[in-house]
This record gives sequence, C-alpha cells and structure tokens, in this order.
Amino acid sequence: MLSDTLAYFESRRALIVRALDALVPASGPTRESMERIVEFCGRGKMIRGCLAFLGAEAAAEAAAAVGGASAAERGEAIALVAAAMELFQAGLLAHDDIMDRDELRRGAPTVHARYAKEARERMAGGPAAAAEALHVGESLAICLGDFCYFEAFAVLSRALAGNGRQGEIVELCGSGLCEVAVAQMTDVAWGAGKAEIPEGEILSMYRGKTAHYSFSLPLAVGALAAAGAPGMAAASGEAAVVRPLYELGEKLGILFQIRDDELGLFGASESIGKGAGSDLREGKKTLFRSRLLAAAPDRERARLSELFGGGVDARPEDIAYIRRLSEELGVAESIARMSRESEAEALAILGSLAALAPATRATLEGLVEYVTRRDK
Amino acid sequence: MLSDTLAYFESRRALIVRALDALVPASGPTRESMERIVEFCGRGKMIRGCLAFLGAEAAAEAAAAVGGASAAERGEAIALVAAAMELFQAGLLAHDDIMDRDELRRGAPTVHARYAKEARERMAGGPAAAAEALHVGESLAICLGDFCYFEAFAVLSRALAGNGRQGEIVELCGSGLCEVAVAQMTDVAWGAGKAEIPEGEILSMYRGKTAHYSFSLPLAVGALAAAGAPGMAAASGEAAVVRPLYELGEKLGILFQIRDDELGLFGASESIGKGAGSDLREGKKTLFRSRLLAAAPDRERARLSELFGGGVDARPEDIAYIRRLSEELGVAESIARMSRESEAEALAILGSLAALAPATRATLEGLVEYVTRRDK
Repeated sequence: MLSDTLAYFESRRALIVRALDALVPASGPTRESMERIVEFCGRGKMIRGCLAFLGAEAAAEAAAAVGGASAAERGEAIALVAAAMELFQAGLLAHDDIMDRDELRRGAPTVHARYAKEARERMAGGPAAAAEALHVGESLAICLGDFCYFEAFAVLSRALAGNGRQGEIVELCGSGLCEVAVAQMTDVAWGAGKAEIPEGEILSMYRGKTAHYSFSLPLAVGALAAAGAPGMAAASGEAAVVRPLYELGEKLGILFQIRDDELGLFGASESIGKGAGSDLREGKKTLFRSRLLAAAPDRERARLSELFGGGVDARPEDIAYIRRLSEELGVAESIARMSRESEAEALAILGSLAALAPATRATLEGLVEYVTRRDK
Repeated sequence: MLSDTLAYFESRRALIVRALDALVPASGPTRESMERIVEFCGRGKMIRGCLAFLGAEAAAEAAAAVGGASAAERGEAIALVAAAMELFQAGLLAHDDIMDRDELRRGAPTVHARYAKEARERMAGGPAAAAEALHVGESLAICLGDFCYFEAFAVLSRALAGNGRQGEIVELCGSGLCEVAVAQMTDVAWGAGKAEIPEGEILSMYRGKTAHYSFSLPLAVGALAAAGAPGMAAASGEAAVVRPLYELGEKLGILFQIRDDELGLFGASESIGKGAGSDLREGKKTLFRSRLLAAAPDRERARLSELFGGGVDARPEDIAYIRRLSEELGVAESIARMSRESEAEALAILGSLAALAPATRATLEGLVEYVTRRDK
C-alpha cells in the first residue's frame, strides 16, 4: 500500500541522510565540496537509495526462506551502499543541469548556478564578467559531479569490503552508469535535432535512462549486497530474487516515465516541481508527443508541431487543446493502456517472489502505485 | 637508462592499445562513443597505463624474492587495469578541455571541439547557431567524460575478478580521483581569482593533481593488482613495494611538474605540444612564477605582473627577459636545486627496493631521467 511505502521511504531516507552526513570530513581539502554535495542530496527524495534498502530486504528474506543466515550489521553497509546511489545521482544531476541550462533544482539554485553566483559576487560587474562567472560555475559543477562519482565508487568499495559480491556490484554500477551516459548523449542529440524519433528508440531511452538506472540498478545492487554480506550462507537464493527485481525495475521505470511525461505536460498539484507545459518548452521527445503527432490529422499538425517544437511557453488553452485532441484521437487511452499493462506485469513479478515477507510485499506494491499515480 | 624506459613504454603501450581496441563493441549503443574514446586514448603517450605495468613488474619481483608464486596470465589482467588508467585520464582531459576552453589536444581537436564542429555542420549558420553548437559540443563531452569514468570502473572490476585486492584497488582509484577533482576545482578558482597563491598550496596542488594521480596511483594500482592476482601466494612481500612505489610516484610527479612548468614557459623542441609562453597566456600559478614574483625588486614587478597576469601573448624578448631575471635573482637555481633534491630522493627510494630485477631497475631509473629532462 502507498502509505506503507511512504513510511518505509521516510525511515530509510533518514538512515541515508545519516550515512551521507558521516562522509563529510571535519576538515581538509574535500570538506567544502562534500558539504555542498550532502546538502544537495538532502533536498532530494532519495528514491534510489531507498530502493537499495528494499532490494536488500527482499534478498535477505529470500535467503531466510532457503535457510541462509541473515548477516549481522548488514544495515550499516546497506546505508552506505544507498548513500553511494544518491552520490551517483547527485553527480548526474549536477552535469545534467549544465546541459539543460537549468537554474533551479529541488527548490534551490542548481550546482552550477550557485557556483556562478558566488563567482559573480567575487568579480567586478559587466556582461563579460557575468559570462565568465557562468563559465567558472559550469567548470566547478563539472568537477563537483566528477567528485560525486569518484567518492561514490570509493564509498561503495569501502562499504562492501569483505562482501562476496563486491566486484560484481561495482561492475554493475559501472556498466549501468555507462548506459545512462549514452542515453544522456542521445537526449542531447535529440534536443539539438529536428527529426522525429521512432517510438522504439523513445522506449529504449526510457529503459536506459530511467528504468535500468533509477529502478533496476539500485534494487539489484541492494539485493546483491545483502546476498554477499559476510556471514551470509552461500545458498542465499539470490538467483530467485535479483533477476525478478531487475525486471520489476524495468516496469517501474516505464510507469514512472509515463507519469513523468503526464506531469511535464499537464502539470498537477501545486507541489509539483515541473509546471504544466514544461516539456513543451524543452521540446522533449516523449512517447505521448510521438503518438499524438503520428495520430493527428493534417489540419492539426501545424499547431501541434509548433507547440511541440520546443521553446514555446504554452498557454492554458494550448494545454487544454492538447488534452482534448489526445482524448479524441485515442492517444490518451493507448498510453493509459500501456500503463495498465506495465502495472499488471509489475504486480505479476511481485506475485512470483514467493519468499517476500508481508511488509516488504506491501511496500513494493505501494511502490507500483506510487510511480503510477504520484503527483509530484 | 632512458632508452630502456622508452623501449619498455613502447612495448607496454602496444598492449594497452590492444586492450582498449578490444573494448569497442562490434555494434550497439555504446559503439560510437567507445570508438571515439579509444581513438582519443590512442593519441596519448599512455604514461599512466605503462606505470601500472611497471608497478606490477616491481611487485611480482618482490613476491618472487620472498618465495611467492608469480601468477600465470597476469599480463592480460594488467593490460586491462592499465587501459582503465587511460580511460580515467581520457575522461579527465575531456572535462579539463571544456574548462580551459582548449580546442586542440594531442594534435587534434579536443572532444568538445569535435562534437561542436559536428553539431555546427548539422545546423543552419549564424552566430546563435555557433554558440548553440558549442553548448551541444560541451554537453556531449561532459557525457563522454562521464562514460569514460564509468567504463573504467567497470573494466577495472571485470579485470580484477578473483583478485584478492580488487576492492582495495577500486577504493584507491576512487579516492585518488577525488583528490584530482578537488585539485582541479582549486585550479579553476585560482584561474578566476587574482590573489597570489602561497608556495605551500602550489606544492600541494602539484602533489594532488600530478604526483599522486599520475604517478603514485598507477604504480600502486599495478603493484596491488599483481600482489592480489589469483595464484599469488599470500606472502607476496607487497608491503615492501607498494608504499615505496607510492612515494617514488610523489618524487616523479614533482620532477615532472617542474619540467612541465619550464616547458610551458620557455618551450623547447619543435615537437612540444605547448609552445613557449603558453603558461603566461593561461595565467598559470606555477612554483616558478610564485618564486620569481616574490624575489623580484619593486622596479620589475609591474612588467612581471603584467606578463604573468594571464591573457598575454608573450614576445620572444619577454621570455628572454623572464629567463634572465630568474637567473639573476637565483630563482632558476633554487628550482634546479629542488629538482636535484627530488631526483636524489627518487633514486634513494629505488635503491631501497632490494628485490627489483636489473631490467625493472634500469627502466625505473630511466623514468626518473625522463620526467626530469623530457623535452615534450
């Protein structure tokens, strides 16, 4: 249930915050950067870190079901693994915001915007100085993002010392992040180009950039970390859990992205970070856009192409027009159907995980609900 | 001897090139990026990768001296570890060149300059398009740099599967790279600021950005990889070799940086990448600059401050003036003395490594000579 999931996330988030805080050294050359990173992480929902906990939970229960011993003091190591997931994400966001020229993130200035502001305050005025300050800000944000990645790998290795799956986990993170980096390059190229993107490529972007990285990876990493923990018997039954969790992550990611596209186009509650029409402004190549443009009759195409062409600040009547058209043409229903199918597949995978404890099952079911219906 | 070292580097470089080539997949979403990266690596000297081989050599000889068995098929794993070192370096350079706005690197366009050129060719003309193409180029180069890091960690873990020191090596790389990222931030801040930097901080930058990362880290990583290889006896005598190699790396790094500053100021042979005066143009905060400004009498300070203030295209007579002044004021001699001391310390560390085979000793001695006297 959703309330179980929210309570679970809240409690695990507190453990991750504590683990991150403990990474800030009392002094030395990295102190200032680590403070900045931990403050930045602290403003996020920390879904990826919480998923690592959830993956560990599921693997430990699978192990108990086949008679494997659950390891003592697993919690502390998992909190560090989860912290590493959040450090990866912080690095990616610091870099993404440079590429998207975003000034705000999580209700505060983005990493490069904050560095640029600080540089501007140190410099004399003038437009040349402002451009130079922006370059300094972007340069420092590139370095800080790099620092996040390096620290994350160091933390991960340290947390997993003596863990039988250490190497496998580091490799999984490395290759999972490669997938994100390549997807991000595709995203930049799409943003710069005018060509329509085939639906298959859009879905493969959803899998690479959202599903595998944000859902499958942390679930699998958490599960492997629990399965390889010192004191865990060799027969941990992990094969029965890691693969299904990875596939569950795919479904969750698709559901999350479909909902994300909806929120980016139609907006939602006041609490939402992205306002209605923000995806139009960015010219984002979403599944919804692709299906609507494909289905639209010729007489609507000019207006739609302009609205979806990027750089447009859509008026409320534009948004209402898009919504009406998508309903008339059956696009809204075709996407809703896809969402219902993914939801059913996700629940079927959960059903196949026989060893899950009731609390973990309820949390995972609530997670499916959360990604499908969240309003922020 | 220098000729031993050059021959050794040439032979190991060929193995690294082969290992990198094998990382390019025949197809798939990462093919294009990997091709670009491997081509970029292939234009470098691959010193860091060669140092990983040399560290492994030294550790294997130390192990043989205490009766530890040398592992079979160590070579292939070390080549991959060396390739990972070059991937880290490629990522750092791709990002550095954005920060320094460099258009050329290793005799060809930098990563972002090449992406920007390709984007410009796809776009319609105009100055706004050129600025947009540069932004696309920088964005793609940020992603490609990230990809290099992630791939490097994945390769490192895969190469070290079953290696007893795998976790320690990944952690060492993570924390060593953190040191570089923080040093790079300091470098950006120095470039943007006008304040004079105390000599102690300059030397600590030399250690963090050059010595530890470029010399100590690959030597230590190679040594640990050899010591932890499957089939290597537990008593590998590595304690007697990893620490001294790390310290040797510090001396090599200081020597390398002093020579680098000399080349960046006075230039050298035609083959050099950086021309005479290039450090003046960049306003680089070198040890030489710091000592010369501190020693200069008031009447010379205005001209010196202008020359060293950055953005200046120095004329040959300016370079000659700086050289003459540095000799008159004893600055040239004070730096040469520092170089001689570091060289003596490096050779003393080599002397303490009793188990080194004659060929490895000659290669390491030649390395000391190379970093001290290289002309490119």
